[in-house]
Amino acid sequence: MEMLTVGTVAFDDITTPFGRAEKVIGGAGLYSSIAGSYFTGPVNLVSIIGGDWPKEELHALEERGVDTDGIEIKEDGKSFFWAGKYHDNMNGRDTLATELNVLAEFDPVLPEHFKDSKYILLGNLTPEVQSKVLDQLDNNTELIVLDTMNFWMDIALDALKAVIKRVDVLTINDEEARQLSGEYSLVKAAEVILTMGPRYLVIKKGEHGALLFGNGEVFFAPALPLAEVKDPTGAGDCFAGGFLGYIAKTQDTSFENMKRAIIHGSAMASFCVEDFSIERIKGLSEFEIKERIESFKKLSHFDL
Amino acid sequence: MEMLTVGTVAFDDITTPFGRAEKVIGGAGLYSSIAGSYFTGPVNLVSIIGGDWPKEELHALEERGVDTDGIEIKEDGKSFFWAGKYHDNMNGRDTLATELNVLAEFDPVLPEHFKDSKYILLGNLTPEVQSKVLDQLDNNTELIVLDTMNFWMDIALDALKAVIKRVDVLTINDEEARQLSGEYSLVKAAEVILTMGPRYLVIKKGEHGALLFGNGEVFFAPALPLAEVKDPTGAGDCFAGGFLGYIAKTQDTSFENMKRAIIHGSAMASFCVEDFSIERIKGLSEFEIKERIESFKKLSHFDL
Repeated sequence: MEMLTVGTVAFDDITTPFGRAEKVIGGAGLYSSIAGSYFTGPVNLVSIIGGDWPKEELHALEERGVDTDGIEIKEDGKSFFWAGKYHDNMNGRDTLATELNVLAEFDPVLPEHFKDSKYILLGNLTPEVQSKVLDQLDNNTELIVLDTMNFWMDIALDALKAVIKRVDVLTINDEEARQLSGEYSLVKAAEVILTMGPRYLVIKKGEHGALLFGNGEVFFAPALPLAEVKDPTGAGDCFAGGFLGYIAKTQDTSFENMKRAIIHGSAMASFCVEDFSIERIKGLSEFEIKERIESFKKLSHFDL
Repeated sequence: MEMLTVGTVAFDDITTPFGRAEKVIGGAGLYSSIAGSYFTGPVNLVSIIGGDWPKEELHALEERGVDTDGIEIKEDGKSFFWAGKYHDNMNGRDTLATELNVLAEFDPVLPEHFKDSKYILLGNLTPEVQSKVLDQLDNNTELIVLDTMNFWMDIALDALKAVIKRVDVLTINDEEARQLSGEYSLVKAAEVILTMGPRYLVIKKGEHGALLFGNGEVFFAPALPLAEVKDPTGAGDCFAGGFLGYIAKTQDTSFENMKRAIIHGSAMASFCVEDFSIERIKGLSEFEIKERIESFKKLSHFDL
């Protein structure tokens, strides 16, 4: 009953320079809950799907330690669908189709046994839905992480700011940090954003790593240089899920432990991009994860 | 007699979102020799200037521990001049003017007492000029670093490959690594480039840090997140100069020491961008440098 994540459970159609995955399972809730499940369990997943989403994948989630009681199933509806195509350099992507389907009516209702969750990940959704999840939680939370994007800054800034005010950690990318703060320097952007409510700010820079600001300190985690990046979809969600799963496991929200959590999140993201959909992250061994974490240390540590 | 650097000593006219510096002193040779001089000395500087380059700045260089005997002065000529304007986000820049002037006739002749230099930095110049410097050196070199750019890949690839074959370390940016290798993944690009001659490859990513490949290993040094970046000009040269200066000081070309050298180079680059021209790097204290190096450790280290 420790970690709760709310986010899409969906279908994706993804084209990258390395191939295409047609109508594969995806969504921020799916990615983040699987990533978190390697460190803590059960992970309480709040989402909505249509009757078309494969039941056997729900069972697989349960077996992996994800509590799917918070997934509303609209049997006569269709699941959220996103189609996108990545550019040759993988740094940009074009959205080819977005079909909200059942997501348009998403009005999350938390099962009773989800309400005492301590570590909360609010995946990228409308600020109203994110707020509604917070409203239903007991006064028992230890750390609330909010993931969002420029889209909500463009069309719902006030609602977004209201929910940002209620969280402990905000995760956005560098351009979004600049947009939200009006400052180009990420150091200055962080200063501004940390007056908006959160204690910590995580700036995700994709293949360029991630920055953690808070507590008057700053920490940088590199992305692991990989020989093969097949599909970046879900990397940010695996990052957030691994990050919060590690915090839930260790029950420690100090800056020092946040640093370790960022590395654990980065490790989960590095697995995610090595294959399409959840292929790479669905059956990781403890040894693989440990080895990957060690490689981050080897990558960035030096003796003076 | 340990470190030698060859590169431009010039005038720059620089416009950034933070202001303009008209006809200030600059050039890769200037930046790299000053950066190196904090760790080793004297630094042998090979370059060419016109009669217009300020004599008092030559004296200042000498006082700082740069041996300027290798700077040819064409009293009736004009120094190399570059004018550029940085974009609002500082990530890109447009060249407004390039006047080769005396650089067009640069045919470097090394003073006798430069020829036994052990640590060599070949700044970004024509591959022919870089080769000519190598030809004059005694068989005494410990480490040769080559800095170059896409321009030479476009117009003189064969000559560039010939000089790359003769060096130990190649420093280029990520796009250049992709262009030179034909591989998008930097891991694969490094594999290809390390078959071309160099033992080590440094990939400079500007505000996103630097990667070191070699010895079957990889190391990543972040760029320090700075509140103020006034002018990125010379950062890459300060990086290279600080890197090689540290190697010259420690006389150790192991991968472990290369990592420390990369951090020292990154520290010098971080100072460089804090002001225009050489303003910030011309009078650093030992304490400032030590403190800056420590901040890199704090930024990137974590305990598992």
